[in-house]
Amino acid sequence: MAAQQNRLNEQAQGVFIIAATPFSDDGEVDLYSVDSLTDFYLEKGVTGFTILGMMGEAPKLSEAETTLVMERILKRVAGKVPVVVGVSNPSNRNVERLSKEAMALGAAGVMVAPVANLKTDDQVYGYYAGIANLLGKDIPICLQDFPQATGVYTSVAVINRLIDEFSQVVMLKHEDFPGMRKLSQVREQSEKEGRRRISILVGNGGLFLPQEMLRGADGAMTGFAYPEMLVQVCDLFANGQPEAAEDLFNVYLPLLRHEFQYGIGLALRKETLRRRGAIRSAFVRKPGPVLDKNDHEELGRLIQRQDIALGK
Amino acid sequence: MAAQQNRLNEQAQGVFIIAATPFSDDGEVDLYSVDSLTDFYLEKGVTGFTILGMMGEAPKLSEAETTLVMERILKRVAGKVPVVVGVSNPSNRNVERLSKEAMALGAAGVMVAPVANLKTDDQVYGYYAGIANLLGKDIPICLQDFPQATGVYTSVAVINRLIDEFSQVVMLKHEDFPGMRKLSQVREQSEKEGRRRISILVGNGGLFLPQEMLRGADGAMTGFAYPEMLVQVCDLFANGQPEAAEDLFNVYLPLLRHEFQYGIGLALRKETLRRRGAIRSAFVRKPGPVLDKNDHEELGRLIQRQDIALGK
Amino acid sequence: MAAQQNRLNEQAQGVFIIAATPFSDDGEVDLYSVDSLTDFYLEKGVTGFTILGMMGEAPKLSEAETTLVMERILKRVAGKVPVVVGVSNPSNRNVERLSKEAMALGAAGVMVAPVANLKTDDQVYGYYAGIANLLGKDIPICLQDFPQATGVYTSVAVINRLIDEFSQVVMLKHEDFPGMRKLSQVREQSEKEGRRRISILVGNGGLFLPQEMLRGADGAMTGFAYPEMLVQVCDLFANGQPEAAEDLFNVYLPLLRHEFQYGIGLALRKETLRRRGAIRSAFVRKPGPVLDKNDHEELGRLIQRQDIALGK
Amino acid sequence: MAAQQNRLNEQAQGVFIIAATPFSDDGEVDLYSVDSLTDFYLEKGVTGFTILGMMGEAPKLSEAETTLVMERILKRVAGKVPVVVGVSNPSNRNVERLSKEAMALGAAGVMVAPVANLKTDDQVYGYYAGIANLLGKDIPICLQDFPQATGVYTSVAVINRLIDEFSQVVMLKHEDFPGMRKLSQVREQSEKEGRRRISILVGNGGLFLPQEMLRGADGAMTGFAYPEMLVQVCDLFANGQPEAAEDLFNVYLPLLRHEFQYGIGLALRKETLRRRGAIRSAFVRKPGPVLDKNDHEELGRLIQRQDIALGK
Repeated sequence: MAAQQNRLNEQAQGVFIIAATPFSDDGEVDLYSVDSLTDFYLEKGVTGFTILGMMGEAPKLSEAETTLVMERILKRVAGKVPVVVGVSNPSNRNVERLSKEAMALGAAGVMVAPVANLKTDDQVYGYYAGIANLLGKDIPICLQDFPQATGVYTSVAVINRLIDEFSQVVMLKHEDFPGMRKLSQVREQSEKEGRRRISILVGNGGLFLPQEMLRGADGAMTGFAYPEMLVQVCDLFANGQPEAAEDLFNVYLPLLRHEFQYGIGLALRKETLRRRGAIRSAFVRKPGPVLDKNDHEELGRLIQRQDIALGK
Repeated sequence: MAAQQNRLNEQAQGVFIIAATPFSDDGEVDLYSVDSLTDFYLEKGVTGFTILGMMGEAPKLSEAETTLVMERILKRVAGKVPVVVGVSNPSNRNVERLSKEAMALGAAGVMVAPVANLKTDDQVYGYYAGIANLLGKDIPICLQDFPQATGVYTSVAVINRLIDEFSQVVMLKHEDFPGMRKLSQVREQSEKEGRRRISILVGNGGLFLPQEMLRGADGAMTGFAYPEMLVQVCDLFANGQPEAAEDLFNVYLPLLRHEFQYGIGLALRKETLRRRGAIRSAFVRKPGPVLDKNDHEELGRLIQRQDIALGK
Repeated sequence: MAAQQNRLNEQAQGVFIIAATPFSDDGEVDLYSVDSLTDFYLEKGVTGFTILGMMGEAPKLSEAETTLVMERILKRVAGKVPVVVGVSNPSNRNVERLSKEAMALGAAGVMVAPVANLKTDDQVYGYYAGIANLLGKDIPICLQDFPQATGVYTSVAVINRLIDEFSQVVMLKHEDFPGMRKLSQVREQSEKEGRRRISILVGNGGLFLPQEMLRGADGAMTGFAYPEMLVQVCDLFANGQPEAAEDLFNVYLPLLRHEFQYGIGLALRKETLRRRGAIRSAFVRKPGPVLDKNDHEELGRLIQRQDIALGK
Repeated sequence: MAAQQNRLNEQAQGVFIIAATPFSDDGEVDLYSVDSLTDFYLEKGVTGFTILGMMGEAPKLSEAETTLVMERILKRVAGKVPVVVGVSNPSNRNVERLSKEAMALGAAGVMVAPVANLKTDDQVYGYYAGIANLLGKDIPICLQDFPQATGVYTSVAVINRLIDEFSQVVMLKHEDFPGMRKLSQVREQSEKEGRRRISILVGNGGLFLPQEMLRGADGAMTGFAYPEMLVQVCDLFANGQPEAAEDLFNVYLPLLRHEFQYGIGLALRKETLRRRGAIRSAFVRKPGPVLDKNDHEELGRLIQRQDIALGK
């Protein structure tokens, strides 16, 4: 069965694109654009998808819409690349329900961010251990470490303990900021202590992607509107060409840095995807950021400058 | 039509009980206990209900469960006292959908807490104005001002502006802490400036109820497991007996203070309701607080001391 | 030498009063009131002092004022009860300088809260270990665990590790909220694992003092304006009369709860001390809370009610 | 008198460098490096200095060190460029004392960040109004709007109100993130409403400098270790060459982005200044960031890549 063949594991690398969820201008899920965006990502060479994450506006979907989007993408992507489904939720029951639904529909694994208000190492460990036990060994888990959004800090010690105790923990979405030392520590401690090496994909819009690749990341899990750059950068690193990789990265850095702005970044990303023809509307569900005239002009100018730099 | 007769308005007073949502020990919604708890509250003399709030574990319910609980309580309470339904949600679409569903089922109004990440006065005002415009003049709104949980601070200026511009804003759930001066300011500025006087019901477990009544509150919106005390205190205040009211309040203060503890407070409240026979299980959905042996003994001792003080 | 005889140790118990710092109405340190307040505390039977803490407005003093206040109190208290000096500071150099100055002047030990922005167990441990190593074995340390003010959460595991590794860590000021389970865990794990038993004094205004004494606290470190109650409650607990202790505590609970309000609580405390004749002015340095007419009347009424309850 | 001639005003523009405070390896203030760093900044063409800010480790200095550093720099810079002195402090008395000391020594003005725990527009306004009234009309004030560090959000409405009511408010250090719309709003509302136009210098390490200049900023107030780039970029903007300005900016963007990392950014900045010969030691006072082997190599590689891009 397809779902089985595609199970997420520690070897995952490259670009797992954080997929936006396209809406029409009246706020409805736009299935036409879901399809076109899915194809856009596949054409750009992504090695995986992550859907229904925070930047996918998952908390703003109804349950039926969640299922609709999940089914649509999983079906379209089936057999091509693995899909990780974001299942973070205030209730463990809902995490379990969503995870099982996702896996049944062909997901490769699930991504879990901790609930708010976890403070100490024991509390963070306890939360993830509870989820891992609930989901069982057959559902691969990606830990989403994004303290800027969750308010929860996951220490290297906790990550290591989870790797040691739960074989289904196969991936870390590394999004602490600043977090590069953490990345090195996870890699170095695992090597030194003979620990299982999990996949680490980096977030924060890819703002430090070259540095993070050099520190042992396996790729990126982010949603920059030019995924082809992320793909090429990862490929160049895989081919032992870090300087060429970073040269390419730097051409896109001004726009990538622009999209990095929390909040309004999602609106900028969707608008860029719209301008590139990947989706029909840049609508973000309310309450959410809306671009004004200045924002549009500024974005246009940055895109134009990038096109010039790329010789377009 | 029943729903129309019971519309929430500025004259609301007394005790709007924050209703717990009872589960069985395996975590399912326990409809038998929903009924018995509803009856318990009614017997204790509450003047209103607030359901599906944070302490009602609303974010942990599925959509179907939300509807199930809402329908069950609204039907049982119909024609007796008004019911306010918590509809806070990251998406305005969901706020709208839930509000309309609640009103159609006979709710008296809705309670809305702001989404996270609103910082300035304009942002908080803008959020509530957006919701008020979306819901329209026919759905009465209670503003939930609970910065300890939401991280959002709603100023007196914003509250006044909302009162002035939206007739459907009829109630403030006052739960800032410390927040007594804010309460006085809302009252004094309204009086001085000829502003519409809205209902103010106080939260924070009722920890400052007598002081707040003297500052112009109309009652309490909280879920203390001895609602009969809250009811009697409000009645005594209404009858011009503030000293007797506070004497009674103080007998319960040790236990009320105990239940005031954020997080574990919900587990203590449910366990107390269970011991009083109002619900069959004190289960809190995970992740959530669980009482240990010390907690149980401590609670038992405090209840026993209270019973003695009450001459039981 | 006096300073040597009074060294803080694990046997500390009773009431270490958090001393307010009195100013005159124009904001200058009022040495007359420093003396009278010191005498007031001693007359009420406190077993120790904690000076220059957050509620002592230490961050608002100049260096010269810090020395002035420290010298004045240490001299007046010398030989009577131990004095702990708050030395929390953004710079380790300043912690060291203040600590050595305090010890040279006769302090019994120092109290240290963590700097902001420590997140994981390792970071919190690392901070305290750095301080402990810097100060050396001869300066007794009280850990101030007050996450509501510092934003830093100190886990039981970190506390235990510090106890195990640093003999100078002799006291925990327990002020997490809610934090009663933490208190029990420190006590139970120490007993089970044969760990050195340190002194635990509780804060949060004493709001849960009886419950905390039953869970193994050794007393209170707080600044409630009626220290005689705290002293008597601790004495009654020491004499095996927990019910009598709690009965007495509950008479003061309404006012204690009132003073518990963060921010304005300090102004209420100072005003109460002023009304009791312990200091000449209730001035709080700016920016800081100022009582208005409502606040004054409310406080007066609560004091009057307490006096009546006490048969005064 | 020199101090008078150099008073900060609304016409300030260009680069006000956030000056690092150099220490020797044992943590003492290194006056030799204070001098060499001052000269370094002047040689690079900065149009002003901002000293004793957060990135200048001001909270870690003793009072005597504060005076020492202030005197040393003010004397060396005297008559060349204006110097703004950071005077943020938990106590208004200390803000006043520091401000008067700074002005007496020849400072051009002071920079004030709000104290923590201000929440509503009225609270933020009230704080700044209190400070402005305390300092009087003769001490020019730069508002430091840096919510990521202070936790305080200053709305456009508050900024406008302060501009309208206090002529001494002449500059905004714009460091909200994301904050570009705020910058545009301050500019557009002032123009539309005939409000006094104040100087706006941008922070956040300059990460969005070109975009911010296009939105109406007058320059940068940041401490990037290559101030000559900031200077040239501002000059090019002043000369109507925004594209050339941004082309130059983008060459430095990879390193600038690297230094943008909160916390460790200061250590990276000081190490870069050390490598450039501007200071003798990159020591950061404890507790503070320390570079490890990875960090050093990574920084070296980025500097080398930048040198190559610059044709060095």
